[in-house]
Amino acid sequence: MDDIFFEDVIPGATIRTQPYLLPEHELISFAAAWDPMPLHIDKAFASEHGGLTAPGIYLLAVKMRLVHSLPVQRSVIASLGYDEVRFHRPARPGDELTLELEWTAKRRSRSQSDRGIVTGRFSLSNAAGEVVMSHLDTVLMRLRHPESLPEGEGGRR
Amino acid sequence: MDDIFFEDVIPGATIRTQPYLLPEHELISFAAAWDPMPLHIDKAFASEHGGLTAPGIYLLAVKMRLVHSLPVQRSVIASLGYDEVRFHRPARPGDELTLELEWTAKRRSRSQSDRGIVTGRFSLSNAAGEVVMSHLDTVLMRLRHPESLPEGEGGRR
Repeated sequence: MDDIFFEDVIPGATIRTQPYLLPEHELISFAAAWDPMPLHIDKAFASEHGGLTAPGIYLLAVKMRLVHSLPVQRSVIASLGYDEVRFHRPARPGDELTLELEWTAKRRSRSQSDRGIVTGRFSLSNAAGEVVMSHLDTVLMRLRHPESLPEGEGGRR
Repeated sequence: MDDIFFEDVIPGATIRTQPYLLPEHELISFAAAWDPMPLHIDKAFASEHGGLTAPGIYLLAVKMRLVHSLPVQRSVIASLGYDEVRFHRPARPGDELTLELEWTAKRRSRSQSDRGIVTGRFSLSNAAGEVVMSHLDTVLMRLRHPESLPEGEGGRR
């Protein structure tokens, strides 16, 4: 798919990635390094509580890896921040997680005419279609043709 | 330090961790696995742009590791979510990052009398005292003495 630039962003439109299988060894080693809670690393303990669960920070890392498969690699410059990060339900080893991005807002940059500010809602869902983690991400995004877009277009304010 | 439970949380009070040194090899290997942008993994490319920078997701992981050194290990049950995650300025290999937590709000749980809902602002700062990343974290926290605290206390609504 051709890369999506600022002009191509349509609020309400969505794109999805291929599923990502959560390997048990990766979940445990990530948790051991960054968030060593018993529920994330201790199989015996976790088995009495419904099984191992993925740390929230691991789900955010998986989301970031999946972002690299989206057609925005040449257009996104940087993330300005995340809002409304929510951990809706547990994710567990063996889950197949798919990332969906829904564009929610766009406007031209006030200070730099070659870029805009775009917000999207990312949702990571399991094979049953249940959202396990979601958040808003606001990014700086390049225009495809900065010279040809009138400043009013795309909502520059 | 004794663990902090719901009763001990005072909005406005702060706690700090020891500094965490960002090792170059760890930054690069984390980025290679989860956010392989040239500015995070390619020293030659990055040297033309002020040097390697830490991925935002790596800074969130470092924050989570530092949380494990805070005196809340027995009291925090789970994170409900993050808000206002902001990446204020670049963090680079060799930076010494300190985590500060400022409590901002607390209330008793409506449905479970043994716990409350507590919000804190986490800030990760470099040795010059500049904040590189900050966010709000809202967690479920155990009461130290659930049986002795009147329901009105601590702001149960």
